[in-house]
Amino acid sequence: MLLYILGMVGIAAFAITGVISSGKRDMDLFSVALIGMVTSLGGGTIRDVILGVDEVYWVKDPSYLWVAFLSSAFAFFAVRIIEDRQQVFHYADSFGLALFTVIATQRVLALGFSPMIAITMGVITGVAGGIIRDVLSHRPPLILGREFYATPAFLGSLLFVILQKNIPHHEYNSIYAASLIFILRLFAIHKGLYYPSWLLYKKK
Amino acid sequence: MLLYILGMVGIAAFAITGVISSGKRDMDLFSVALIGMVTSLGGGTIRDVILGVDEVYWVKDPSYLWVAFLSSAFAFFAVRIIEDRQQVFHYADSFGLALFTVIATQRVLALGFSPMIAITMGVITGVAGGIIRDVLSHRPPLILGREFYATPAFLGSLLFVILQKNIPHHEYNSIYAASLIFILRLFAIHKGLYYPSWLLYKKK
Amino acid sequence: MLLYILGMVGIAAFAITGVISSGKRDMDLFSVALIGMVTSLGGGTIRDVILGVDEVYWVKDPSYLWVAFLSSAFAFFAVRIIEDRQQVFHYADSFGLALFTVIATQRVLALGFSPMIAITMGVITGVAGGIIRDVLSHRPPLILGREFYATPAFLGSLLFVILQKNIPHHEYNSIYAASLIFILRLFAIHKGLYYPSWLLYKKK
Repeated sequence: MLLYILGMVGIAAFAITGVISSGKRDMDLFSVALIGMVTSLGGGTIRDVILGVDEVYWVKDPSYLWVAFLSSAFAFFAVRIIEDRQQVFHYADSFGLALFTVIATQRVLALGFSPMIAITMGVITGVAGGIIRDVLSHRPPLILGREFYATPAFLGSLLFVILQKNIPHHEYNSIYAASLIFILRLFAIHKGLYYPSWLLYKKK
Repeated sequence: MLLYILGMVGIAAFAITGVISSGKRDMDLFSVALIGMVTSLGGGTIRDVILGVDEVYWVKDPSYLWVAFLSSAFAFFAVRIIEDRQQVFHYADSFGLALFTVIATQRVLALGFSPMIAITMGVITGVAGGIIRDVLSHRPPLILGREFYATPAFLGSLLFVILQKNIPHHEYNSIYAASLIFILRLFAIHKGLYYPSWLLYKKK
Repeated sequence: MLLYILGMVGIAAFAITGVISSGKRDMDLFSVALIGMVTSLGGGTIRDVILGVDEVYWVKDPSYLWVAFLSSAFAFFAVRIIEDRQQVFHYADSFGLALFTVIATQRVLALGFSPMIAITMGVITGVAGGIIRDVLSHRPPLILGREFYATPAFLGSLLFVILQKNIPHHEYNSIYAASLIFILRLFAIHKGLYYPSWLLYKKK
């Protein structure tokens, strides 16, 4: 139940980033909402299709569709009164990354796959929505930036797998793991957290 | 049968837009045809994969492959004598959008899904091919423009669902719905049809 | 067994191209590795999802994940001592294109599909990873260039289908077909091999 609500919150957060990122002057509500929906539903769709589940999650439970559409529509109007869109964008993106990564990890583990598959799918689900959004908005994906992006997702997913193994079914495991991702990502944005130099890509 | 033929016409129309959009000076026939095929088959492939049908439509019936390839090859040569490529591009894109949206809506309804899933998948299928094309051609997706794009697809899909409910199995329901999309889109292109200002995205 | 090893080599080759292509100054190991993994695993994932196999290949056999990750990590450090990254990129890309096309053709034939589906899926699998890579790196896809790209993949896939029909189960059929693709592609890069003028796209 907690995971279900967190999933909905993650959908809403990513939908908002889609709207802020793709919104161009004079685009209409429906086009913007469609990008918001694709951003927020895309990652989990890729996850479910790769895992070959019987029905993609939002086909099975259309409440996800409604949440994605209504959050996009809400964001469409709300951006008019937001002072610092870039900041809201980064917070919502970090929040969505945290929730989607952990929920996907949990879902894949629950389907009986190995921890390695669960972590891989967790990270892919977490970052995929944002990549789709950035490609659709015709700008370089956020993940290509200098700050930590894949690393927090990886560490949070790993933490969740370890917690589930040692204190199984503990209600707050997902909260702990998602918090780790969110906090690391916020540090990366505000403090420019990144690796020691020898772990950074070198141009000659 | 009517839907089958309309499907083929839609494939051909989208293949032509793929060729016009991606064609760069001195690209060869096969590379251009591949982009044409991906554009025209992409939307329906995403639809079938998300719905988890047993076999994607063009794997089941390779005639679609042939139509996609031959229309692309035809367009490859035909562009040499077309006066106004941009106009042909927009007409073919509107035509493909209209047909794909309605056919997908019909297909999803026939599989027993709810109207809401049918409309969502209809719109996604209609716009997905064009988005793939624009991303591959490395230019901003058409859907990010100012004119109506997602809205006509949504309205046409909605009309089809309403017609099917009230006059089921009527042969021309799909024609009526597709015509609505095509006409609204033509108005958008030629007359700059768009929403009242408060339904447009605002930059601060 | 030979195909299994070739598959792994192909994964490694494409992972390296992903790293070279997406690597920007100061990106970290994990982000770069993720792009490398998506590049190398993407084509086959699309193939398996479209064919509707029970389990995508790297979910069934996670060794592929390890090879993709370790080659990406290796490439991340190795680029520091490579003199001519562009040349390594093109060789690795040609190598990956050759192997992936042939392996996909073989796999689809073995699943009982027709030669036409096998060739189509072979070419799509071969070029898809590179297209994903180029879109993620935010640059025009290699396939949009002037030199042969889809054509060698098509001819190699066709050769493999013909060989399998006439000398079935011959161990080296895949080697012959992959060599044809690799050699044609090298010719295209170094000698500017392309079609006669009437088979090239014309701008008016």
